[in-house]
Amino acid sequence: MDANLEQQLDTIVTAAKAGSRRLLTLSTDEKNTALRQMASGLRSDSAAIESANKLDMTAGNEAGLSDAMLDRLLLTADRIEAVAVALEEIADLADPVGSIIETINRPNGLVIEKTRVPIGVLLMIYESRPNVTADAAALCFKAGNAVILRGGKEAVRSNRAILDAMLKPLGDDFPRDAIQLIPITDRAAVGALLQMSGRIDMCIPRGGEGLIRAVAEQSRIPVLKHYKGVCHVYVDKDADLDMALEIAVNAKCSRPGVCNAMETLLVHRDVAGEFLPRFAEATGVFHVELRGCARTCRILPDAKPARESDWDEEYLDMICAVRVVDGDDAAIAHIDAHGSQHSDAIVTADAHAAERFLRGVDSATVYVNASTRFTDGAAFGKGAEIGISTDKLHARGPCGLEELTTYKYVIRGSGQVRG
Amino acid sequence: MDANLEQQLDTIVTAAKAGSRRLLTLSTDEKNTALRQMASGLRSDSAAIESANKLDMTAGNEAGLSDAMLDRLLLTADRIEAVAVALEEIADLADPVGSIIETINRPNGLVIEKTRVPIGVLLMIYESRPNVTADAAALCFKAGNAVILRGGKEAVRSNRAILDAMLKPLGDDFPRDAIQLIPITDRAAVGALLQMSGRIDMCIPRGGEGLIRAVAEQSRIPVLKHYKGVCHVYVDKDADLDMALEIAVNAKCSRPGVCNAMETLLVHRDVAGEFLPRFAEATGVFHVELRGCARTCRILPDAKPARESDWDEEYLDMICAVRVVDGDDAAIAHIDAHGSQHSDAIVTADAHAAERFLRGVDSATVYVNASTRFTDGAAFGKGAEIGISTDKLHARGPCGLEELTTYKYVIRGSGQVRG
Repeated sequence: MDANLEQQLDTIVTAAKAGSRRLLTLSTDEKNTALRQMASGLRSDSAAIESANKLDMTAGNEAGLSDAMLDRLLLTADRIEAVAVALEEIADLADPVGSIIETINRPNGLVIEKTRVPIGVLLMIYESRPNVTADAAALCFKAGNAVILRGGKEAVRSNRAILDAMLKPLGDDFPRDAIQLIPITDRAAVGALLQMSGRIDMCIPRGGEGLIRAVAEQSRIPVLKHYKGVCHVYVDKDADLDMALEIAVNAKCSRPGVCNAMETLLVHRDVAGEFLPRFAEATGVFHVELRGCARTCRILPDAKPARESDWDEEYLDMICAVRVVDGDDAAIAHIDAHGSQHSDAIVTADAHAAERFLRGVDSATVYVNASTRFTDGAAFGKGAEIGISTDKLHARGPCGLEELTTYKYVIRGSGQVRG
Repeated sequence: MDANLEQQLDTIVTAAKAGSRRLLTLSTDEKNTALRQMASGLRSDSAAIESANKLDMTAGNEAGLSDAMLDRLLLTADRIEAVAVALEEIADLADPVGSIIETINRPNGLVIEKTRVPIGVLLMIYESRPNVTADAAALCFKAGNAVILRGGKEAVRSNRAILDAMLKPLGDDFPRDAIQLIPITDRAAVGALLQMSGRIDMCIPRGGEGLIRAVAEQSRIPVLKHYKGVCHVYVDKDADLDMALEIAVNAKCSRPGVCNAMETLLVHRDVAGEFLPRFAEATGVFHVELRGCARTCRILPDAKPARESDWDEEYLDMICAVRVVDGDDAAIAHIDAHGSQHSDAIVTADAHAAERFLRGVDSATVYVNASTRFTDGAAFGKGAEIGISTDKLHARGPCGLEELTTYKYVIRGSGQVRG
């Protein structure tokens, strides 16, 4: 890495650390007021943001971005308004900082309060959606963290315009260094930042699995990751099959392109003969392509035979792998081998089978008798989310403001010394 | 790495994963019974353990280990009994697994329980103390985790004898693969294990800072680290100086070789003239060497002048750095620059200064009017501890059974689907 880049990054990270310390002194009201000012800044500068975005769109067109990528990149007045509303919603959320997780009263009179505190300096690496600039900045800020934002090259003008609009209405004493957008598109910058353990406390990559794996590979900083959602619904022999059908169809078809959609249906052999034709008919309306195991294909001759790789696939599409299993143990074993520890559900009226499944499936979110589609911050009542973690540490599942904090032990004494 | 070693490690890690899944099926009573059996196994085989330890001691002597290292390596009947008692104490601790951290009742009737679960497969890397084999195995087991133990080369026979004794009384259906001691002393083995992200869920190194840094450098697995304890006591201008003296002397002198001992005393300039001579006199009894800033040395002419490097030093000895500061902001800035985010205390009667310090100091444990020496699992009421974390994620401060767990969201529904 050249010395100039190194110097630039050092300046950014040093400023972020100082900014994070100043955030510690802001009250909840001060943070919320700032968030509302940021929202009004977006509204006032909506036209300027749209202009900047047009330049990105033109460049993206010329660079041959796919239609899907261009749609993710596009900002309209309506989309900018939605971002402003999202900031106001974050202002309305409860502030996790300072809340007491646990109080330990010791016999010697010490009062130990396990207290939520910001994590410190966060690094957010994301791809084409420019609204992430505003969302991530606001969530990190509300949780008291400084954030270094590193958006996609294709959205560089849009991201800059969004952040400028957010920061413009804020007063001179606002710690602007607590929200920085890296002006460097050099890829070496990310690699260098990811080595700064002890100076950057956590990295959150958001984008495709490739981006996230690349970040995790390089990083010396803890990374909060979302790899993929290979989610399962298992229909047990004691399932209410009407309920199972509704849940399985909802999990597959209500929004197939998201991570909490079902990718593989598992069905107990005792009910497969009755259930699978109903499932094929119901999903047929949505033109779902079924890829089945041998037993499935005997029941559903129109299903394609599944290859071994199908069990590991995150289709994000109207495709569903289907496997007939011998019971809940086999279902758990399948999920263990092929799932992504995201969201998995059992449909059953048998409380014992349900408990075995809930205990045995090692996923962030495990359901009985409900659709996997509920795995997100809004459905959990967390409000906005920074992402959904498929990690086991430090946070699992939907991550909102609380998951952007850590804790410290605050101990109040009256002169206690250790014997 | 040679193919044979790779194969051996693959076998160990695969077995550990299978073991961790079997642990999920054990009840708290079954785990506690097993822990008590392990304790009795240690007692029954005490002589065999001592014999194995003698061989390690002889080899250690020949290899020229220091007296301190040999003392750490030594096992006597009393020490083995103490280890057995420690296992029984772990049996008596509450089981964190299955406890519900938070319940979210959603308007649609979904009940979301954030539930403690084991982390999975842990890797414990430690140095010469063979009792860590038993302690770590028992703590990881009680929290429902499979553990792969990798002790120091110098304790290899002692560690093997301890684990054999613990496992001997257990029945045939006990998942022995959940507690494995790596028979390989090859250093390449550790490096290879640390690449196994996704198969090993967390690594806990225990030993000197060098070992821990080496593990953190190499690891692709989350590492729970304890780097060092550069702990501070800050005596504010509004401190009760009698209380401050008692706390500072306790923090420095009651057990200087541990991580929660004070290494640097900070004193407000307004009280330095009165306080420092009293501190010098009281610590003089313990032959503490003081290394002071220029202002300190003017007040205490016998103090050695501190070098800049003294502020970063973990002495673990009867040495104390002393600095006069202009107020709590300067104290916080000093701790920010030189502390290790372990344990820091303010002594003051001024509630505002106390709150500024508690909020501004970014350490795992922050105290007002008490000695830093309380930072450990026992003093926190956690019972045994696996270590004290200076990380911010996933756990900070003293780590007991709870910190060996993560959580998952268990969601019970009655057919809910997403609109």
